[in-house]
Amino acid sequence: MAARPEKNPSSDSSHTGRRQATSYDVARHAGVSQSAVSRCFKDGASVSKKMRDRVMKSVKELGYQPNAIARGLITRRSNMVGVIVSNLNFYPEVLSELSARFTDRGVHVLLFTIDHESDVGRIIDQLWQYQVDGVVVAAHLEQDQVALFEERNVPVVFYNRSYQDVPVSSVCCDQVEGERKLVNLLVEGQHHSFAVIGGPKDSVVSMQRTQGAIDRLHSLGISDIVQADGDYTYQSGRVALQEVVKQRGTVPDAIICANDIMAIGCMDEARYHLNLDVPGDVSVVGFDGVRSASWSSYDLTTIQQPVESMAEAAVSMLLDRVDNEQLPPEKRSFSGVLRRGSSVRE
Amino acid sequence: MAARPEKNPSSDSSHTGRRQATSYDVARHAGVSQSAVSRCFKDGASVSKKMRDRVMKSVKELGYQPNAIARGLITRRSNMVGVIVSNLNFYPEVLSELSARFTDRGVHVLLFTIDHESDVGRIIDQLWQYQVDGVVVAAHLEQDQVALFEERNVPVVFYNRSYQDVPVSSVCCDQVEGERKLVNLLVEGQHHSFAVIGGPKDSVVSMQRTQGAIDRLHSLGISDIVQADGDYTYQSGRVALQEVVKQRGTVPDAIICANDIMAIGCMDEARYHLNLDVPGDVSVVGFDGVRSASWSSYDLTTIQQPVESMAEAAVSMLLDRVDNEQLPPEKRSFSGVLRRGSSVRE
Repeated sequence: MAARPEKNPSSDSSHTGRRQATSYDVARHAGVSQSAVSRCFKDGASVSKKMRDRVMKSVKELGYQPNAIARGLITRRSNMVGVIVSNLNFYPEVLSELSARFTDRGVHVLLFTIDHESDVGRIIDQLWQYQVDGVVVAAHLEQDQVALFEERNVPVVFYNRSYQDVPVSSVCCDQVEGERKLVNLLVEGQHHSFAVIGGPKDSVVSMQRTQGAIDRLHSLGISDIVQADGDYTYQSGRVALQEVVKQRGTVPDAIICANDIMAIGCMDEARYHLNLDVPGDVSVVGFDGVRSASWSSYDLTTIQQPVESMAEAAVSMLLDRVDNEQLPPEKRSFSGVLRRGSSVRE
Repeated sequence: MAARPEKNPSSDSSHTGRRQATSYDVARHAGVSQSAVSRCFKDGASVSKKMRDRVMKSVKELGYQPNAIARGLITRRSNMVGVIVSNLNFYPEVLSELSARFTDRGVHVLLFTIDHESDVGRIIDQLWQYQVDGVVVAAHLEQDQVALFEERNVPVVFYNRSYQDVPVSSVCCDQVEGERKLVNLLVEGQHHSFAVIGGPKDSVVSMQRTQGAIDRLHSLGISDIVQADGDYTYQSGRVALQEVVKQRGTVPDAIICANDIMAIGCMDEARYHLNLDVPGDVSVVGFDGVRSASWSSYDLTTIQQPVESMAEAAVSMLLDRVDNEQLPPEKRSFSGVLRRGSSVRE
């Protein structure tokens, strides 16, 4: 799509014709200096009650609104944070939690959505231009992109991404521990053959989950494992199960999916297209604990991410670093909770 | 939660210590005036190639990024739009579509999420402060709140909300027409008794849908109708069906839900808790066409909202009005598409 043309001069001037009151207008109306008006809108600035009353009377009469953007130029703080999310459809709860928590603290969210995690580079320039106070990233960045935040002195917290050798703050669900819990449950339940279905290739979370499951299976002496890849969508879960059956000639005892939505796709494919009983013929597990996983039709066994705790941690870590940029990077890892549904034979 | 404290002076000064290059630094480095630097970053401004090369060399060496916020103060355009969504969990596709389309046009999204549609008043002040170029509202505003946009000269487009007697732009799915299609299908399929399950009381869309269904049923001579209210959630759909059965002593022939997620809750309640067959014992229809409605476990008959067309219309209508504020308000209404699943007895 084409870039927008610049606003033409004629509409610009008509805008000015009905322009909003400025702090200059307020100062003139109240018969005080502009800096006195500014002080009335600055927390902690010294202003007499008489002066404040006088200014506020003019503010009210003129319908003046202090300009947060102009104030940001003075305080060097925009009171905006950037939030970068990939695959928005899979993160509505996370975005909702982050947005509500920032809003509660008087901070606004500049939203960037990207289709593929690898697209993130092109939006970083835009972040600098808006001089956001900090950024929460729920998408994959290359290490050299991560370093840009440090160079620019912009605090950043990664949500559900971590970088082992890069000193950067992150909040994660422990993917590997979660997969260990799922595998342990399945192996205790006498499942001997497995399929592991991964998400998009550029997703680090998916990689950690699938590798976590495979490593745990290996460590328990299980080698009857086939792998297939999806892209986190329902349809890709269905296709992956078809592929698994094609590879093995039959369904395995259990299918471990890198997220809940693909697990839901697997369950529907098994039940409605392969005429299999879940969990009678095949057990299915997911990861995330999304709402639909708990619907009675699925009642999926999964790892529930503690989204509220993770969002709260991300918001407070970020704002702490905006307030005090000397704070060192910190990695926080939250355990997911095994949610035992009825999609696993026990 | 408490408001954030102002940044303390000591961390502020350390920030300045590692500060980013300004246009002043670039001008000094290149040996040109500051206004020459500004012109290099202004579309359509006259700058010689020699001057531009000289400035750009310094820009590169100093790692200068033009400040979009400061530029906004000069051009009176922030290149930011506000997007207000309620019940984010039910609108991930819409937000994703809007965000991607604004980004394609170089416009950034300042996101406001609200828990209840009636909360919207408190965020309007914040919108003024950020001097957004325009606002897309997917939440309910009172008529006097709508008028504030006009007074402030801020273009606004309502998404899936319309105001009959207020001259304001909106993009809607035709809720009443959609319900007529659903009712026609059900009545042709020999359904004689009905339940209509509404959404939250402050949702205008829910009101239009339930009233649209009831009016159409009445016009076809059907009066065996019970009503119950949910809040658009899965769980509320289940509870509403229990209430319907309690009111009538038995299930009606068909249940018309104001959105898909409640319809999914009804289907699960009917199948897994009341041991009823859907559609054998009871037909269920929804509205929206969300992804989960098409999953094999549900295969819900519903009205598919044309989200892509609606989002594109909202974005282009808004930006047209940012560019030319003389454009009159416009209401656009899109027909939803009847998606015939297997949740209705035919």
